[in-house]
Amino acid sequence: MSKNKHTVFGINGSIAVLSSRKYKISEILIQNGSKAESDGNITRLIGHYGGYVKFLRKTYFKDNYSGLRTQGIVIKFTAEIEQELPSLKNESGNKCILALDRIEDPQNFGQIIRTAACAGVDAILIPKYDSCKITDTVMQVSQGAFTEISIYQVNNLNRSLEQLKKDGFWIVAMENSLDAKDWHKIDYKDKIVIVAGSEGHGIKKIILDNCDFQTTIPMQGKVNSLNVSAAVSVILFERLRQISK
Amino acid sequence: MSKNKHTVFGINGSIAVLSSRKYKISEILIQNGSKAESDGNITRLIGHYGGYVKFLRKTYFKDNYSGLRTQGIVIKFTAEIEQELPSLKNESGNKCILALDRIEDPQNFGQIIRTAACAGVDAILIPKYDSCKITDTVMQVSQGAFTEISIYQVNNLNRSLEQLKKDGFWIVAMENSLDAKDWHKIDYKDKIVIVAGSEGHGIKKIILDNCDFQTTIPMQGKVNSLNVSAAVSVILFERLRQISK
Repeated sequence: MSKNKHTVFGINGSIAVLSSRKYKISEILIQNGSKAESDGNITRLIGHYGGYVKFLRKTYFKDNYSGLRTQGIVIKFTAEIEQELPSLKNESGNKCILALDRIEDPQNFGQIIRTAACAGVDAILIPKYDSCKITDTVMQVSQGAFTEISIYQVNNLNRSLEQLKKDGFWIVAMENSLDAKDWHKIDYKDKIVIVAGSEGHGIKKIILDNCDFQTTIPMQGKVNSLNVSAAVSVILFERLRQISK
Repeated sequence: MSKNKHTVFGINGSIAVLSSRKYKISEILIQNGSKAESDGNITRLIGHYGGYVKFLRKTYFKDNYSGLRTQGIVIKFTAEIEQELPSLKNESGNKCILALDRIEDPQNFGQIIRTAACAGVDAILIPKYDSCKITDTVMQVSQGAFTEISIYQVNNLNRSLEQLKKDGFWIVAMENSLDAKDWHKIDYKDKIVIVAGSEGHGIKKIILDNCDFQTTIPMQGKVNSLNVSAAVSVILFERLRQISK
């Protein structure tokens, strides 16, 4: 996969990118007198990037980044965020991969990455087509979490799930169906893949048929359904509860 | 409290408002040929509001609601969404009030209302000042959930929590402190208030001192913290797990 140019802004995202050391930084723009300029962590980190740092006036930020919550820092870098799925046969213990079947909304995708990192998920699996990409918005919403979780991009999600089954993973689909058990009645220990479907269409039938278990979060009240990122939070932290007991 | 004019759009929010029968509808705008016009639930509900419905051209919607995901329906209505906190002394069984101390972001507030309704929370408590109000954006993000959960607005959140303690509620603060127990080690049965703090500043000290318990969701990885609405999802569904066992 080719390297892509990306931009992050804001203190959290910038600290994550600068401290991860995984990306090639091309430019660090700092606004004079800004929150970022006086931030101790930013100051310490940009010390290593002398030639790449530009201090600029407030008007420059206003002209170029109006409406964005930059907090006075913008970083341009190139990265291969998406990786190919490696063999995970030799992994053991509690491992969790979150597979996203055609998530469309960058806000949801970014929030899910953030939540997954906080919940100790090992990797995120997305299909190459019909899915929101890792855009600058997604990175921004993730608050830097994209730097600390592997994101695997695959041509065929269903085939990758078959591979993961062979590698010893159990596959749990988040799907509201008659076969589904309540979210807290599933055993999330050992090697597990949790599959979440798209906002509008759920999980593809071919994938659903391939999953070992289905789980659902029964809704109280009349509201149709939880937002997908809220539903993912619930499941991932139920897993964390089970494995941390 | 005075009645306020509000606008909702989109199919879910509109169905919620029309079917709740709690609000005074002043106008229902439908776009000719839109998804809303052919939606069975919408058609059935607007049948009761004959004189209030206007069918309008696509250009009207474009001129007036560009950039909004109306799905071809906009409803104007007046409502007192925020109510005063009544005495809850005589309530019994599993009751849950979610108190929000100075939530600022309308996206977070709307998501929290949606999640709370899905998790069977009985009411939301917000302070009158220093808090995001129930704006049209909040309603929109809540996807109609604001119609099915009581939202109490109080002058002094701390004093209201004291009242709720006297009324038999246990108060649990979501706060990352040394005193805090992991989120799944708290007993959420019976009458409980869960307090979540603002995105930037957490919970006010005076309120924190008044809470019976503190709970935290320990973070895996290096990401600073969960988004407040994701954290609230985790806690509310842990409560649901405990009371539905």
